[in-house]
Amino acid sequence: MSGVPLFPPTDPRLAAQIGFVMEIDRLKGVVRRNLIADASRRENTAEHSWHLAMVAVTLSEHASTDVDVARVTRMLLIHDLVEIDAGDTFYYDSVAEVDQGEREQKGAERIFGLLPIEQGGELRALWEEFEARETPDARFAKAVDRFHPCLLNFHTEGGTWREYDLTLSEVLAKQGSTIEDGSPTLWAYTKELLAEAVERGYLRP
Amino acid sequence: MSGVPLFPPTDPRLAAQIGFVMEIDRLKGVVRRNLIADASRRENTAEHSWHLAMVAVTLSEHASTDVDVARVTRMLLIHDLVEIDAGDTFYYDSVAEVDQGEREQKGAERIFGLLPIEQGGELRALWEEFEARETPDARFAKAVDRFHPCLLNFHTEGGTWREYDLTLSEVLAKQGSTIEDGSPTLWAYTKELLAEAVERGYLRP
Repeated sequence: MSGVPLFPPTDPRLAAQIGFVMEIDRLKGVVRRNLIADASRRENTAEHSWHLAMVAVTLSEHASTDVDVARVTRMLLIHDLVEIDAGDTFYYDSVAEVDQGEREQKGAERIFGLLPIEQGGELRALWEEFEARETPDARFAKAVDRFHPCLLNFHTEGGTWREYDLTLSEVLAKQGSTIEDGSPTLWAYTKELLAEAVERGYLRP
Repeated sequence: MSGVPLFPPTDPRLAAQIGFVMEIDRLKGVVRRNLIADASRRENTAEHSWHLAMVAVTLSEHASTDVDVARVTRMLLIHDLVEIDAGDTFYYDSVAEVDQGEREQKGAERIFGLLPIEQGGELRALWEEFEARETPDARFAKAVDRFHPCLLNFHTEGGTWREYDLTLSEVLAKQGSTIEDGSPTLWAYTKELLAEAVERGYLRP
């Protein structure tokens, strides 16, 4: 956040909401590993969240079961807010993964806690639902979250696959069941995309 | 878009949708005038769209009439897609404003036209609704779109107000009725924020 102190409205409820809105601006400064499609720079988590929401709006008909697109969209808009405190954990980083859960829970506590209690509780519950990946909405949202980096890696000639020297079987093992579970259609396409990536030398066999 | 050609799925409907999803990645490269809250750089339109959607999710209870938050959210996610072709037109730039409408209509034609016809038509209709600002959902969405830069300008010690040497009456004239129409509560707060901005020297009296 900027050095400029907030100028809160006098109504405490609105003040809490404005405080939250300003605090989450920091997600624009959380940088992910993958590149944006023109390969000019890494993606930040705010624009990533926008893109995932748009993927859900565009592709929801391909979810494995009926989903509530509005809930999925909202879930994806907030799914990475905890990264403001916990940072982005690269999906293949098994060291950072160790305490990722704990760091994210603390982040959730603080960030959703900025809001009026019942409103923060609702958004936190939606985030917990996403993380648990047990409901149809969460399963599709998680599938979108895993599908998207595959698309961007392919279109940047390998992106993080190449940077971290990953193999097809590593990618299949990490992403497969999550994408397949949320959308068999997107999973079928992802497998073709990965095979083509190997063919083109973007990904090791 | 990257130099890498798309690898489209064989199903033409899914291929059109994937083409759209990859094309709109370019919104991450459209740079707006205003700064992000830590003043480190200008904001891009993709992260701006995410932030507006989150403002709507957080503040919809302050809309002047009942709104459908899910529709408002979706409207804000797509409201600036046309900037991929038309670029960002600064709100106080009366020269660029002249052919802005035409450039944006052409952009809408091409970008929403990438989708399957009925799906592209639905999103385009939602964008037209936003632009027309006649329905309660559009009125609130537009109010959010005008309120947000005021927040960021204040928190970056003046931001574009200072850069373009704007006066309080210019800002009031340009933003006032749109914010007030969509949310009297946010307008009351904006007026306080602007008065404080003048007090602190962020905005000329």
